[in-house]
Amino acid sequence: MERKNRVAREPESRMPTGDLSPFRKIDRRTFLVRGAAAAGVAASAGLATGASAQDLAGHPWERVYGAGFTGYGQPARFEQPVMRHIVRPYGDLAPGSGAALSPIESLEGIITPSGLHNIRSHSGTPDIDPKQHQLLLHGLVSRPLMFSMDALWRYPMTTRIYFLECSGNSNRNLVPKPAQVPAGALHGNLACSEWTGVPLRMLLEEAGLLPQAKWLLAEGADSAHMSRSIPIEKALDDALIALYQNGERLRPEQGYPVRLLLPGWEGNMSVKWLRRLKATEGPTHTKDETSKYTDLLPDGKALQFTFEMGVKSVITRPSSTMKLPRAGFYEISGIAWSGAGRVRRVEVSTDGGASWSDAVLHGEERPKALVRFRLPWEWKGQPAVLQSRATDEKGNVQPARKVWQARYAPDNRFHNNSIVSWSADADGSVKNVYA
Amino acid sequence: MERKNRVAREPESRMPTGDLSPFRKIDRRTFLVRGAAAAGVAASAGLATGASAQDLAGHPWERVYGAGFTGYGQPARFEQPVMRHIVRPYGDLAPGSGAALSPIESLEGIITPSGLHNIRSHSGTPDIDPKQHQLLLHGLVSRPLMFSMDALWRYPMTTRIYFLECSGNSNRNLVPKPAQVPAGALHGNLACSEWTGVPLRMLLEEAGLLPQAKWLLAEGADSAHMSRSIPIEKALDDALIALYQNGERLRPEQGYPVRLLLPGWEGNMSVKWLRRLKATEGPTHTKDETSKYTDLLPDGKALQFTFEMGVKSVITRPSSTMKLPRAGFYEISGIAWSGAGRVRRVEVSTDGGASWSDAVLHGEERPKALVRFRLPWEWKGQPAVLQSRATDEKGNVQPARKVWQARYAPDNRFHNNSIVSWSADADGSVKNVYA
Repeated sequence: MERKNRVAREPESRMPTGDLSPFRKIDRRTFLVRGAAAAGVAASAGLATGASAQDLAGHPWERVYGAGFTGYGQPARFEQPVMRHIVRPYGDLAPGSGAALSPIESLEGIITPSGLHNIRSHSGTPDIDPKQHQLLLHGLVSRPLMFSMDALWRYPMTTRIYFLECSGNSNRNLVPKPAQVPAGALHGNLACSEWTGVPLRMLLEEAGLLPQAKWLLAEGADSAHMSRSIPIEKALDDALIALYQNGERLRPEQGYPVRLLLPGWEGNMSVKWLRRLKATEGPTHTKDETSKYTDLLPDGKALQFTFEMGVKSVITRPSSTMKLPRAGFYEISGIAWSGAGRVRRVEVSTDGGASWSDAVLHGEERPKALVRFRLPWEWKGQPAVLQSRATDEKGNVQPARKVWQARYAPDNRFHNNSIVSWSADADGSVKNVYA
Repeated sequence: MERKNRVAREPESRMPTGDLSPFRKIDRRTFLVRGAAAAGVAASAGLATGASAQDLAGHPWERVYGAGFTGYGQPARFEQPVMRHIVRPYGDLAPGSGAALSPIESLEGIITPSGLHNIRSHSGTPDIDPKQHQLLLHGLVSRPLMFSMDALWRYPMTTRIYFLECSGNSNRNLVPKPAQVPAGALHGNLACSEWTGVPLRMLLEEAGLLPQAKWLLAEGADSAHMSRSIPIEKALDDALIALYQNGERLRPEQGYPVRLLLPGWEGNMSVKWLRRLKATEGPTHTKDETSKYTDLLPDGKALQFTFEMGVKSVITRPSSTMKLPRAGFYEISGIAWSGAGRVRRVEVSTDGGASWSDAVLHGEERPKALVRFRLPWEWKGQPAVLQSRATDEKGNVQPARKVWQARYAPDNRFHNNSIVSWSADADGSVKNVYA
C-alpha cells in the first residue's frame, strides 16, 4: 500500500501562535494541492466566465420586502427534506421505540444541529416538567442528596464538545446485501454537540462517596426506566451531569431537563432524563445491559460492559445515493471519531484500499469529539471505490470489514466500527458496497 | 486594585497532552476553589439530605409511553419563553427592519443555537431559492465568474467557530437611564457559530485578481441590496464564503443560501444573501457605510471604516432582571470576545471594580470566537456590583464606561465595548447599573 500525497493538518488543529490568519498557516504543499483542486473546479463545473452584473437575474425576492423577525428560527423551507432517518421496528404499536438517525450526508463541520441529533429511545420521549423533576444521589454515600434543577444550576459547570454514538450504529451495514440508502440511514446513529453541565465528580464528593462504592446505577425517568451500570472511575473522570446542548437547554429527545454524559462510551450509558444515581459495590446487571448491548462472539459467548466506542470514520460527501454530475475536481469530506481520545490521522483511498492519502483534519485537538476530514479528489469518470480509515492517539486503527466480522458472531449487532466503502460508477452514481 | 484568588484556566484551553481526563488537569488551587463552591451549594440551596428512592415522586411522565420521533426536533415546551428579543423601530410599517437579539442570559457554553442567533436586517429576510441564486465575482479580475450554489459546493471548504457582533450592539446601554431588561436585550446583538464554507481567497485566485484591486464591494440579494466595501487584505486573509452554520445549511435570517463571513469585524460587513463581489480600486462608499456604521466623535467628525470589534465581555448569570433566591454560593458565568484575536484573560469584580479575580476560561484557544468565563462566588446577602473586564492577546483591555464615553460624541451608537455592571440588592434583585 503506497502512501502518496501526504497532506498537512489544518491550522486550528495546531498549537495557537500569534498569527491570526488560519489560511496563511496551511503549508505550501497543502495549499498547492487544495489550490490545484480549486483551480480545476471552475472548468469542471462548467462555470460561465466573462459574466457581468447584467447577467444577475433580478429575482423576485430582491424586489419585495422580506419576512419579519421570529422569536425562534427554523431552517429554510428549501431545506425541509433534510430530516432524521426514522427507524420504528414496532411501527405504530410503539412509535417512540427505535431510533432516528442524523442525516450526516447533508451536514458539514462537526457540530450536529440539535434538531437533527440522533435519537435512540426505548419508550418514547417523556414530557418532563423541570420544576417537578428531581435527581436523587444515594446508595453508598454518607449524605444522600436530592437535587432540584434549580439547585443543580448553582454548581460550577464546564463545557466540552463530545460525540455520542449508539452502540448499535452501523448495524444496518451487517445485513447480507448492502442497503442503497443515504449515509445517515446507515451510520447516523451518532451526533456531536457542545455540552455544558456539572462535573459528576463534584456531586459525588459532596454526597461523600464511600470507599466501597465501585459502580453507579444510572436510571432514567422515561417509562422504561432505562438503566445502566457505570464504573466509578468513569464517574470520577470526565462524566458530566449535562444541562445544556449547543448553548440552549437539552432538547426533550436528548434527555431534558438533565442527562448523564459519559464521553466516548456507548450512547445509551449516557442515561437521558436522569432521575437517580445509586452508588453500589458491583454492577446492577439491569435489563438494558444483559438482554441488550452485549456483543455476541463466534464461540456463542457474549462480551458485556464493552463501554468504549471504537475508532471510526465515514465519508459523508460523496456518499451512498448521491450522484457526481460530471468528471472533475471534488472535495471528499467526512467525519471521524474515537471513544479512546483524539483522532490522529484519517487516510482516504479512492481505489478500494490499494493506496491511501492523508486527509486534512479539522478539530483533532479535541478528545472524544467528531473530527472533519477533507481531501481534494479528481474524479476521472472511471469506476472508483472510496474508503476512509481513522487512527486514534492510542494507536487504534479502524479495522477492515472482514477483520471486524471475524471477531464477532454473525448475529452481533453492536460496535461495528469497520471501514465503510462507497463505489462511484462510470455514470457518477455513488453506491453502498461491501469491500 | 488588589488581585486575589488567581484561578488557572480550564484544560481544553491548554495544549493537548496524552492525558484524556479534563478534570484531572485542573490544578489543585482551582479545584479547591471550585470544590469549596460546590461543597457550599447543598447547604445554601437548602438541599434535603438523607433522601431515598421512596422520596422520588412517581411523576405522570414515568407512567405513560412517551412521544414518537420527529424528523426535525424543537426545544421543550417549557423552554418556549427563551426567545430572541425583537426590536422593530418602525413597527408594523417595516416588520423585518431592525434587530432580534440573542437571549444570552438563558444560554451556556459558547455555541449559539441557530434558532436564537441574533439578526440585524434592513429590509426583512428574503425567501431565496438556492437553485436560482447565483454569486457574481467581477470587476478588477481577469476572469469574471458566476457561481451557482452547486458549483460552490465543489470547492474545498474549511470550518471555524467565530462570533458575529453587530456594530450597534449594546447601544441600548447608552441611554441616560439604565434599562431594566434582560442581558440579551442590551448586549445580545451577538452570536457565535461553527461556520463552514469556501475560503474567499480561493475564489479570488481562480478569478485572477488584478494587482490594482485593493477593495471588494459585497452586495446582498435582499431588497435593500445591503452593501459594504471590504479591504482586499481581509478578503485574502480569513474571509469565508459561508454555506453552513452549526452543521446545517445557513438559516434564512443568517444569509441562506450563502453569506460573506469576515471574522471579528462589524457584523453587517459579513454581507448576507451574498449575490455580488466586485473588485475595485477604492472603497465604494455605499449608503450602508456612510449614512450608518460610522462613529461620531466629540469634535463632530466621524470615523469611517472602523471594522474590528473591540475586546468585550458580559456576565450572563447572574444578570439584569434575575433574582438570587438566597445568600450562598453561585457560579458567575459570562462570555467574552475580541475582533483582534484570542481572549487572554477575563477578570471579575464583585465590588464594583475595587478588586478583581481571574475567571476560568473555556475556549480561549480560538481566535475571534466567544469564550465562556466562570468564577465561583459566595454572595453574603449584601449589596454587590458585578463587573467583568476582558483582555485580548494584543493587549487590548475592555475600557471602563466613562473612558469609552470620553472617546466619542454623546450621540455615537456604535462599537460600545465598555464594561457592563450589574448590581445585586440585599433582597437578591439583580439590576442594570452604570458604574
